[in-house]
Amino acid sequence: MNVKIKWLRDQLLGMKLDGMIITNPINVQYLTGLSEEGILILAPKENIFVTDSRYIESVNKKLTIADEIVAYDSRNLDKYDYENIFLLCENVGFEENYVTYETYKKYMQMYQVNFVETEGLIENQRIVKENDEIEKIKKACEITDKAFEYIIRNIKEDMTEKEVAFEIQKFMIQNGADGLAFDSIVAFGENSSMPHAVPTDRKIKVGDIIQFDIGAKYNGYCSDLSRVVFVEEMKEEYKKVYDFVFDQQKKVAEMFKEGVNIKTIIKDRETDYKLRNYDVMHAFGHGVGLEIHEIPSLHSRKDNILKANSIVTIEPGVYKQGKFGIRIEDTFQINKNNCESLTKCKKDYTVIKLLKNNQ
Amino acid sequence: MNVKIKWLRDQLLGMKLDGMIITNPINVQYLTGLSEEGILILAPKENIFVTDSRYIESVNKKLTIADEIVAYDSRNLDKYDYENIFLLCENVGFEENYVTYETYKKYMQMYQVNFVETEGLIENQRIVKENDEIEKIKKACEITDKAFEYIIRNIKEDMTEKEVAFEIQKFMIQNGADGLAFDSIVAFGENSSMPHAVPTDRKIKVGDIIQFDIGAKYNGYCSDLSRVVFVEEMKEEYKKVYDFVFDQQKKVAEMFKEGVNIKTIIKDRETDYKLRNYDVMHAFGHGVGLEIHEIPSLHSRKDNILKANSIVTIEPGVYKQGKFGIRIEDTFQINKNNCESLTKCKKDYTVIKLLKNNQ
Repeated sequence: MNVKIKWLRDQLLGMKLDGMIITNPINVQYLTGLSEEGILILAPKENIFVTDSRYIESVNKKLTIADEIVAYDSRNLDKYDYENIFLLCENVGFEENYVTYETYKKYMQMYQVNFVETEGLIENQRIVKENDEIEKIKKACEITDKAFEYIIRNIKEDMTEKEVAFEIQKFMIQNGADGLAFDSIVAFGENSSMPHAVPTDRKIKVGDIIQFDIGAKYNGYCSDLSRVVFVEEMKEEYKKVYDFVFDQQKKVAEMFKEGVNIKTIIKDRETDYKLRNYDVMHAFGHGVGLEIHEIPSLHSRKDNILKANSIVTIEPGVYKQGKFGIRIEDTFQINKNNCESLTKCKKDYTVIKLLKNNQ
Repeated sequence: MNVKIKWLRDQLLGMKLDGMIITNPINVQYLTGLSEEGILILAPKENIFVTDSRYIESVNKKLTIADEIVAYDSRNLDKYDYENIFLLCENVGFEENYVTYETYKKYMQMYQVNFVETEGLIENQRIVKENDEIEKIKKACEITDKAFEYIIRNIKEDMTEKEVAFEIQKFMIQNGADGLAFDSIVAFGENSSMPHAVPTDRKIKVGDIIQFDIGAKYNGYCSDLSRVVFVEEMKEEYKKVYDFVFDQQKKVAEMFKEGVNIKTIIKDRETDYKLRNYDVMHAFGHGVGLEIHEIPSLHSRKDNILKANSIVTIEPGVYKQGKFGIRIEDTFQINKNNCESLTKCKKDYTVIKLLKNNQ
């Protein structure tokens, strides 16, 4: 039995919906295990995966009877087939944030039913991870930790941000990752002041900060880690900011457990930022799973109660425009009485030595 | 002066639109050169790029007066600022296929104007490439050619599809690519029967077909190349299919030039497929530019006249389910009197030797 689809069907029943069209590819993957392009339709009689001729063979290879899903090549479906899917149905759920305005209008014509917004129904369910999901995230975190420990011992003089980013990717893939959870951030010196810096041809220099924001993907699941290290020496001006950021992360992690309100905890941190005249440039963290950014987002704009077995990052950062930035981030599992860091690599002051080019 | 935005403003005038919101990130990149997350708003008084605090510093670094664009951090815009953007405006264009149903409803509230669909306005303009765009695509093709010539000389016994794909990526980046234009397809033996095979841990074997579908990205622009090679020997059954596919590509390329109707030419090819009892599993090709798949798509469903200086792939393929597939693809520039292949690597029968593990 496909327990995830059964759960969803129960929800639809409660919402008095006769079916649902799932178009968010990550939700489709969550419910079916399929990463091929296509949409999932829960119709009264069956669960239908509509894909196209590029993917149909690979989909049919993966599906078993236990999946309870029939796959169709869209070339073999005509106007009448589509009308029949929801025949005699009245209300059908759809994902309002994964259907374009154009497609919405097309659906109205094709299916002849009333479409009802389902407002993050599946995304909300995805917050709490099953054991097998947590195991995959742990493995992704382990690979990421190793990649960080490897790279900081293997940066050569004259290396560029792009080259360092590439070595990280190579290490992750060679150590069992599917690939990257997201494009790595490797920012040297003044480039670290941009939270979402893209690796450039800037070469490493003595005295630089290096900001890493990296993550491996393992069996579809993501990890997220940010660290700052210092090249050959650590300037005094960095210490104050490093200590502040480190302390902010610790304060959040000490409070996080099942049942606490994210809003209250983050509000206190924002007060700390204000007292130091630091700008809050981004959320303090986010859920992690099949996607690198999932709900909940760690901010103070509305109440949000933490759930056990959810996975979130905590990533405070301080950015001095044009000068430098420091962000520290780990991936945490929320438990009943505490939270536990799944990324475990070192985060005390780290001064690295550059290798000579012939090493 | 920003000539692309000037062109768009002239179009809007002709359509009696008071402004436009551009949300397709590739269209934003095309008009502004910016690849940072954000949306572009052409308002009566100014061109506005709304981004967030993660990107604002990097955006402001890139923009010059000549760009004629003002960038805002969305944190600094409130309800009234948004209302003022289109104050006294009546009709504003939007991209119906790049706005979700949810966002559409939000826009209606925020801007208090009538939204009008612009139906691929910018995508249509992007079909015909400027000289500097063509130069970038040529460079991307050159890197891709080199990567193919490199990899077929460097496959070792026991290598997996994943490993080969990784070596291609590494070569491209080391030879000046920004990165991949799309995830490489490297399919050994029976895996080649799936047009969109994802690289696996399947090891290479003597007698295998290898299907490559690869492309580098250079300065934002893509290239696309498919080749099939044979490992140590070429089985007789492959030849017939290879010759057919090769011939199909040649027939299309011989006809392609400014002013011809794609539909007519592809229809003839479909007849050839039918005569052989082969299935047409995907389009015969597609436009290439900032995106790997752009319009036009090469199919016979409707009339579509080729334009000079457009860039398209021609990629016929034949797939024998569970056995093997063969696809040959090049990236072509359409000229007034002919078309010219921008990917130039060899495509006669190619039998490769595997390197020993100690080589």
